[in-house]
Amino acid sequence: MSRWEPNARGRLETAALALFTEHGFEQTTVAEIAGRAGLTERTFYRHFADKRDVLFPDTNPLGTFLVEALEGVPAPAAPMDTVAAVLDGVGLFFKDRWEFARRRQAVIAANPELHERELVKFAFLTATLSEGLRRRGVGEPAASLAAEAGVAVFKIAFGQWVAESEQRDLRELMRAAVAELKAVTSAGEAPG
Amino acid sequence: MSRWEPNARGRLETAALALFTEHGFEQTTVAEIAGRAGLTERTFYRHFADKRDVLFPDTNPLGTFLVEALEGVPAPAAPMDTVAAVLDGVGLFFKDRWEFARRRQAVIAANPELHERELVKFAFLTATLSEGLRRRGVGEPAASLAAEAGVAVFKIAFGQWVAESEQRDLRELMRAAVAELKAVTSAGEAPG
Repeated sequence: MSRWEPNARGRLETAALALFTEHGFEQTTVAEIAGRAGLTERTFYRHFADKRDVLFPDTNPLGTFLVEALEGVPAPAAPMDTVAAVLDGVGLFFKDRWEFARRRQAVIAANPELHERELVKFAFLTATLSEGLRRRGVGEPAASLAAEAGVAVFKIAFGQWVAESEQRDLRELMRAAVAELKAVTSAGEAPG
Repeated sequence: MSRWEPNARGRLETAALALFTEHGFEQTTVAEIAGRAGLTERTFYRHFADKRDVLFPDTNPLGTFLVEALEGVPAPAAPMDTVAAVLDGVGLFFKDRWEFARRRQAVIAANPELHERELVKFAFLTATLSEGLRRRGVGEPAASLAAEAGVAVFKIAFGQWVAESEQRDLRELMRAAVAELKAVTSAGEAPG
């Protein structure tokens, strides 16, 4: 039972996503996920707290990644350049995760409770990013605005990325969205 | 029982917010809210579906307002100018609602479930705004980016507004945040 299983986590993720897609998130049990992966429930619980943990890991790896990426950006940089550099790193973070991300997004879209959980995750990422910017000396409301803008770019580019049949590069989509955001916010009149 | 009560809705709101603040949202009952307002439970249920409805009305008045405000902006306008014009209207929408908004925000901050509900509301407002922009002929991802930017400005300015001891004007705070967002996104290098 406790023997090492090659790539158990990845096999469990793949099995879980396939079952969530086929039968719905609510209807899928941990026993079914383990069975589909050819593993035991005990192995499942060594990798995940519960089935929701497959979609939303408790130790949010993207949050940890953001903090490290922020620390890696050379200071001084304009807040939005810092955010753009972090987003470039995020693009690499999701490299080779397209199939998982696409299936995960479809499961979340089909379940309002998971959709709420996704909104909470985005709020957490926004808070992480703005806190990191403040630690770098960016004042308010600039830090919060740059963080909100960064997460908006991520959400929108990510939505495009997973919706594509051909697989465009997430990093390129985010760079295009940053450029578009600059164009959108700079166009028009100065505030009255 | 069915007699007309002057400003029943406002009295129920005030009583509910006071009790949520004193005893917590979970611990407060509809009977207590009605009692504090000097009204019957029956009157409460003529105005609200349940106690959460005091904080998050089912017929979201701000969503309805956004749709009407969008239709009132003369076309053609740059997407961000359209959003800025809508935000100016939102400032008027919250005129004389500072005390309610401030108390409501404190109740929400103290309750994770209500905080999630607030995130869902913001997602709904973002979707409403981007849909309205697309209806005005704005393409994607410009419509989604402008909508996300507008709701970010609203959230941040609203947070400042309710946190103030002196009562600055929400409209002015939103205008300042739009200007700051333009400064933040325009500063720095072009994307590489």
